[in-house]
Amino acid sequence: MNVGFIGLGIMGRPMAGHLIAAGHRLFLSSRSGVPAEFTGKATACANGKDVAQQADVIITMVPDTPHVEAALFGAHGVAAGLSAGKLVIDMSSIAPIATKEFAKKINALGCDYLDAPVSGGEVGAKNAALTIMVGGSEAAFARAKPLFEAMGKNITLVGGNGDGQVCKVANQIIVALNIEAVAEALVFAAKAGADPARVRQALMGGFAASKVLEVHGERMIKRTFNPGFRIELHQKDLNLALNAAQSLGVSLPNTAGALQLFNACVAQGGAGWDHSAMVRALEKLAAHEVAAA
Amino acid sequence: MNVGFIGLGIMGRPMAGHLIAAGHRLFLSSRSGVPAEFTGKATACANGKDVAQQADVIITMVPDTPHVEAALFGAHGVAAGLSAGKLVIDMSSIAPIATKEFAKKINALGCDYLDAPVSGGEVGAKNAALTIMVGGSEAAFARAKPLFEAMGKNITLVGGNGDGQVCKVANQIIVALNIEAVAEALVFAAKAGADPARVRQALMGGFAASKVLEVHGERMIKRTFNPGFRIELHQKDLNLALNAAQSLGVSLPNTAGALQLFNACVAQGGAGWDHSAMVRALEKLAAHEVAAA
Repeated sequence: MNVGFIGLGIMGRPMAGHLIAAGHRLFLSSRSGVPAEFTGKATACANGKDVAQQADVIITMVPDTPHVEAALFGAHGVAAGLSAGKLVIDMSSIAPIATKEFAKKINALGCDYLDAPVSGGEVGAKNAALTIMVGGSEAAFARAKPLFEAMGKNITLVGGNGDGQVCKVANQIIVALNIEAVAEALVFAAKAGADPARVRQALMGGFAASKVLEVHGERMIKRTFNPGFRIELHQKDLNLALNAAQSLGVSLPNTAGALQLFNACVAQGGAGWDHSAMVRALEKLAAHEVAAA
Repeated sequence: MNVGFIGLGIMGRPMAGHLIAAGHRLFLSSRSGVPAEFTGKATACANGKDVAQQADVIITMVPDTPHVEAALFGAHGVAAGLSAGKLVIDMSSIAPIATKEFAKKINALGCDYLDAPVSGGEVGAKNAALTIMVGGSEAAFARAKPLFEAMGKNITLVGGNGDGQVCKVANQIIVALNIEAVAEALVFAAKAGADPARVRQALMGGFAASKVLEVHGERMIKRTFNPGFRIELHQKDLNLALNAAQSLGVSLPNTAGALQLFNACVAQGGAGWDHSAMVRALEKLAAHEVAAA
């Protein structure tokens, strides 16, 4: 397939690499230029318009809503190079409501649109093991599936346009609140005189079991707070959740609480810490660390 | 082994039954009398003192801290019938700090003490699949292990006396906050127009995965709010957590938030609902249900 890929950052680079390895012809564009590793393996393009003229499916993987808007609808953007029948896939994590607008504008050009944000981070991208949450039509999903399968493992068509982004927001809410759950429980246990490592072990088989207890709980105990996933990114995602919730008339009290702890970490200089370091905000309140004795 | 069992409620009955099935000789006492199912299979005793005189290991399984105190140290209680070398095991879920006091008083009589609260509920009790979190000495733990193995599956010596109860509190914190995590995410997704059942499915394989997403998430979508585990019991456990936290100088902001949602359910008449019905408090705030379309 002729595939365009716009955005070759920490996530985009390995994702584009997997598509090349799967035998697709890639047309690349990135704000910071196309990395040397792609020389001779893919076609570097001048801009999004150039990409969209040469590729049949165009993927965007950029940081936030304004970057997607610029990549698609800016001067020399994707929309300027599209012709009917092409497919645009946004794999960035952005606002669900803006996504529905972007999809409508792409559809008006006779093209399909999928929102397909991912979770699993840099490790998931490198191992082609991303979770991919897709919003759009079944036909467009079927067309894109071979590409998704080259990059990910849990691939679900959640619903129509925007529903992929809604699902990603739901994911970020749960992960943040599960991190706070484990953090509150382990700080409590440590301050009560128990060994948090043994408490975590005892809880792994029961109703408290979670991927976060397993992975992030261990990071809290071993004090390994190198990302992983940076607090400033999770801050962005929870702001997205709370802004969307307010427009929708939904109350998310514990999501708001978790964001305040992320904010407290950033105030301590922790914007770049792994999100499991949220525990540090609670420890500051308790003046006691969860670290193994 | 000659085993005393005090407290034959929803949990205690099947637990005592498993001990009899495993070949132990049981001596029973319960506030509401010994159920007929034990006739001819175990010895009914007049009170805790009587139980403690005849058994070598005495288990208590009662609702809350004051009930344990009464069973152990009240008139005709267990302490009055103990002689040196016996072992008292409290499997109720009660205050960690009071537990340490109870252990000291039992130790002063030349006896061992274990706190061994459980999770897994009525189903876990019936299937002999309880998670058992134990605090006490290694020797006492080794002595009690065959009894625990007849009643449970994940059996961990967490630390010294009180640490079993600390671990149980940590468990209840995580379960409550994971329920709120799933509830906030699914109410958000439903209100944003996505299908919560498909969102839950998409999230099961990734970092948002948890036992609560699996079990309680399904209950929220299918609207099956028969306990399970009653909100009024989880309310009790979170009050225990917050009271202990305040004495210890620990701040548990999201635990406090989750308790308020349980309180809101109780205000709607939901004391007896399953704890997954916490989602109803958020839906009330959003005036929108998570139920599958």
